[in-house]
Amino acid sequence: MPPRLQEITPADCCLGIDPGLCRTGYAILQRGIKGPILREGGVIRSTPKLSLAERVLEIGQGLLEVLAEFRPQVMAIEQVFSSGEFPKTAILMAHARGAILFAAAQSGVTVVHYAPRQIKRMLTGSGKASKEQIQHAVKNELGLTDVLKPNDVADAFAVALCHYHSSRAFPYREVG
Amino acid sequence: MPPRLQEITPADCCLGIDPGLCRTGYAILQRGIKGPILREGGVIRSTPKLSLAERVLEIGQGLLEVLAEFRPQVMAIEQVFSSGEFPKTAILMAHARGAILFAAAQSGVTVVHYAPRQIKRMLTGSGKASKEQIQHAVKNELGLTDVLKPNDVADAFAVALCHYHSSRAFPYREVG
Repeated sequence: MPPRLQEITPADCCLGIDPGLCRTGYAILQRGIKGPILREGGVIRSTPKLSLAERVLEIGQGLLEVLAEFRPQVMAIEQVFSSGEFPKTAILMAHARGAILFAAAQSGVTVVHYAPRQIKRMLTGSGKASKEQIQHAVKNELGLTDVLKPNDVADAFAVALCHYHSSRAFPYREVG
Repeated sequence: MPPRLQEITPADCCLGIDPGLCRTGYAILQRGIKGPILREGGVIRSTPKLSLAERVLEIGQGLLEVLAEFRPQVMAIEQVFSSGEFPKTAILMAHARGAILFAAAQSGVTVVHYAPRQIKRMLTGSGKASKEQIQHAVKNELGLTDVLKPNDVADAFAVALCHYHSSRAFPYREVG
């Protein structure tokens, strides 16, 4: 008799985040028997004319609403990077990221980080995949008819899928 | 008869912040009839071995405790800068700053920003003052017998004093 397979955490929800001060993409992925299920994706925006404190408040509060609605067990987010290429953009993104991590830690969700290369390699097999390759991988993985737009949402699903596969390294166990 | 002078906001408390991921200096300054009064100064630390999310949580929660205890009307903090010299340090500091701004905005305190040069000029007359000059200016302003240590606390008082003087541009009004 072949071993019966039982999924360990069938109802797990994972939240993927693509952080930014202007726009933070989020993606809710659910672990399903046949593979990952897209629950919801969207963008949390901040109002450009507001102060930096008010803008990080908008991003952080938006995230808290998503966390309260879906109660994911894990929040997956890209690792810190500092390319040095656009220092001002990186500094502002890090402010949003600080508020996001604070809000996540306040709510008690587990936070996991993935390096950009790790995400690309996991989805396409190459750590140097282009944005388009990532978009297509996300589309195929989720069985969509078209690529996800805007990019922030596609990137949020990319990090969520990376976590999905990383934590599925040994997802099944034999029982009975 | 000379005009009687009345201070507009005698009990105002201002919080100065020198943000950092390892250590965030804070300074509580009270507006007094004869000048600024040092109420409390200290350092909010994060635990290096913890994750980035847990560390920004420690910094943000420490700040929320200070805000709850002193209920300052204003939080003064140095403006964002990106020297490009130490990109990784700047990125980590910006994470702490994002959590601090989010916690401050959550609590409803007004946040004001001052450029490093503005702080130096306000305290010493020179926008290029050294750390030692700033420390001595803080010591003299507050009537202390020695310079404040650690530096994080002295720097937090420097930005609080900068706000104190900036908002004292027209602090008295004639009455009667």
